[in-house]
Amino acid sequence: MTETVKKAILVFQTDFTFKEGAVASMYGVVKSVDRDLEIITATHEIPQFDTWSASFRLNQYIKFWPEGTVFVSVVDPGVGTHRKASVALTESGYYIVTPDNGSLTHILSTEGIVAIREIDEAVNRLKGMGTEQTSIFHGRDLFSYCGAKLASGKITFEEVGPEYPVETIVTHHIRKPGMSGKKVTGIFEIQDPNFGNVWTNIPLSMFTEAGFKYEDFLNVKIYNKNELVFSEKVLFHKSFGFVEKGEPIIYTNEHMNIGLAVSMGSFSDTYKVGYGNDWKVEVTK
Amino acid sequence: MTETVKKAILVFQTDFTFKEGAVASMYGVVKSVDRDLEIITATHEIPQFDTWSASFRLNQYIKFWPEGTVFVSVVDPGVGTHRKASVALTESGYYIVTPDNGSLTHILSTEGIVAIREIDEAVNRLKGMGTEQTSIFHGRDLFSYCGAKLASGKITFEEVGPEYPVETIVTHHIRKPGMSGKKVTGIFEIQDPNFGNVWTNIPLSMFTEAGFKYEDFLNVKIYNKNELVFSEKVLFHKSFGFVEKGEPIIYTNEHMNIGLAVSMGSFSDTYKVGYGNDWKVEVTK
Amino acid sequence: MTETVKKAILVFQTDFTFKEGAVASMYGVVKSVDRDLEIITATHEIPQFDTWSASFRLNQYIKFWPEGTVFVSVVDPGVGTHRKASVALTESGYYIVTPDNGSLTHILSTEGIVAIREIDEAVNRLKGMGTEQTSIFHGRDLFSYCGAKLASGKITFEEVGPEYPVETIVTHHIRKPGMSGKKVTGIFEIQDPNFGNVWTNIPLSMFTEAGFKYEDFLNVKIYNKNELVFSEKVLFHKSFGFVEKGEPIIYTNEHMNIGLAVSMGSFSDTYKVGYGNDWKVEVTK
Repeated sequence: MTETVKKAILVFQTDFTFKEGAVASMYGVVKSVDRDLEIITATHEIPQFDTWSASFRLNQYIKFWPEGTVFVSVVDPGVGTHRKASVALTESGYYIVTPDNGSLTHILSTEGIVAIREIDEAVNRLKGMGTEQTSIFHGRDLFSYCGAKLASGKITFEEVGPEYPVETIVTHHIRKPGMSGKKVTGIFEIQDPNFGNVWTNIPLSMFTEAGFKYEDFLNVKIYNKNELVFSEKVLFHKSFGFVEKGEPIIYTNEHMNIGLAVSMGSFSDTYKVGYGNDWKVEVTK
Repeated sequence: MTETVKKAILVFQTDFTFKEGAVASMYGVVKSVDRDLEIITATHEIPQFDTWSASFRLNQYIKFWPEGTVFVSVVDPGVGTHRKASVALTESGYYIVTPDNGSLTHILSTEGIVAIREIDEAVNRLKGMGTEQTSIFHGRDLFSYCGAKLASGKITFEEVGPEYPVETIVTHHIRKPGMSGKKVTGIFEIQDPNFGNVWTNIPLSMFTEAGFKYEDFLNVKIYNKNELVFSEKVLFHKSFGFVEKGEPIIYTNEHMNIGLAVSMGSFSDTYKVGYGNDWKVEVTK
Repeated sequence: MTETVKKAILVFQTDFTFKEGAVASMYGVVKSVDRDLEIITATHEIPQFDTWSASFRLNQYIKFWPEGTVFVSVVDPGVGTHRKASVALTESGYYIVTPDNGSLTHILSTEGIVAIREIDEAVNRLKGMGTEQTSIFHGRDLFSYCGAKLASGKITFEEVGPEYPVETIVTHHIRKPGMSGKKVTGIFEIQDPNFGNVWTNIPLSMFTEAGFKYEDFLNVKIYNKNELVFSEKVLFHKSFGFVEKGEPIIYTNEHMNIGLAVSMGSFSDTYKVGYGNDWKVEVTK
């Protein structure tokens, strides 16, 4: 940071899209709390209600941001019910304002969370705008408002609300990658909904340990539950352009994990694969 | 505002999408007028040519913004013809730069408009860029340019152009909600194109007056013109999570009006309903 | 610019969409280089791998921006292969950070490029984030990082890397428009994927020279390769509203070139036309 007094940036991710006025309402609330706050759109296109994706995406980009940045993540299928509305502080010094509904799964294991607090609606909910009687837009009335107050320094982290144990944070169960002999296994943890690449949770380091090198042709088997849906020898190389257009390739993604792609095409469409614990991947030489 | 000399924020809504270079051209014009102006995207995904939606959306989020904010709204099917290009000043101190084509309908009745002026093209149209001979992109050449000059203080509201009577502002006719005995009626005024919720124009206060309370099962009838297309008992509750996934619910939306949703699904897709004066809703206990 | 020391704006265009975390990663890198840098989204919806469109779009909006603006354009099907990663300086004083893969085609002939340098990965690639071993996201590791350093003044243009001859810049071949007698010919150079208008590369000046005037009905023939796919008399007028809804019109677009549209409809969908050198247009009176 160039000045120590600089206010934190607010970075937003939701599943709201820009198709209606929800985003503009949230950003207006921020600017009404403090004109000087800078708002950045990470994405408003998380798949609807998909807290697994919300968790993955946040983890994908968080470490590239300056310390102190406040992330507001609102994928909130349980809005207005008993899930907690919270602010987490990571070991690396980021704040995450989010429903505690699985959206913190990845961050908990990668960045680490040092403390989490439940937002006290009595003091940190938007007031005087006639929205007190609605329970379905905490993105505006609670998360944006509280996030803006925190980013602007109007409240401290302690003033968010009561702390509760990090151990009770709601998480998704995600299968771990593994090695047995020279066989590496994992799951498709996410897909790229734009280019159609699919990303395993297998780190490059596990490939290195197994002795897999760029220019190797590797045996890739993909299972949906226990059904084999793909079994091919695939070139492992450093970028898409090393195979012909339309050919599959196995590569190191931007996250230092192993991904599968079709050169100038979509792996997920071509081979009809999804993501989650049911999608297992096995790689041998 | 933290400083009195702070320049107004420019908030944009259009039906241009980000699929081509129109938005980038408009934002460039703003930055060329004044580097210090802050630009916020409200949405560029208003349904094409839909001035009813433009009017509704603006009204949905306007009150959450600081006084003095300049809104540039460009849904402009009549660009280059005889519709007026205007700037309206609301009672609450917002400026709206827009074609006068129905886009001000809601604002006129909710915020109130104290004065409206037609943009004088002779002084407030972009010059020297070789675009004088085109008549199809007032979003760039007229609305963004004039809005930026106004927000930066280079022109006053009076210098926009000649004032004309507020009474002549073009508006859409929108049916009013009503009550007869314990029957509440209204229309679907808009839908949420993302989650598929549909919003009536019936205020929560009318439900309260009719004695409808959360946890009541209410009889909901929906008519398209005069044809009955939906007739079910639906739970009235405060959020989606109070019914099972896939079940309909009647709830209080973020606007303090009554909405219909399907929990983790789309009401508009499931029941094939649209919005506008032809979509009538009747609710009884 | 209001202050001479003001840092350059960074304007982004890519084919990444906002569907995943790539944009948020790039913007985080920028903010980590320099908190004060202003980031503007031009578009992240360039058609995938379409360097022709990338080139066209950049040219569509560049001239509306202040001198010194840094444009980061990443449509990069050859990422991680031997295409050059470069920064171009235009005659008008803009910087363009881009793979040298055809994305500079239009700028070269309209704005002019005075010098181009290949980014030196040894000094201008993101370091210390554990991403050194991936080769597929130069948008983040190279283009955003180098663009941010340039915009913030941390490096000069000379420090980007070694200069190479402007004459070797990779370009698309684009047919030129022409006149013979009173017949004007060109191609559809691009379409508007939102409204469905199609834009020829024929300048208005050529129509003027041919004696074509607003209110004329002109004979328009469209060929796909050599097959005639459209042949109609079409009204030439200044905006869409001068024909009935659903009718075609020939008009002057925002770029001072000739376009074809359907009033409140889509010309490209209605008449099934595309763009590129294979799409020829002939106009006579």
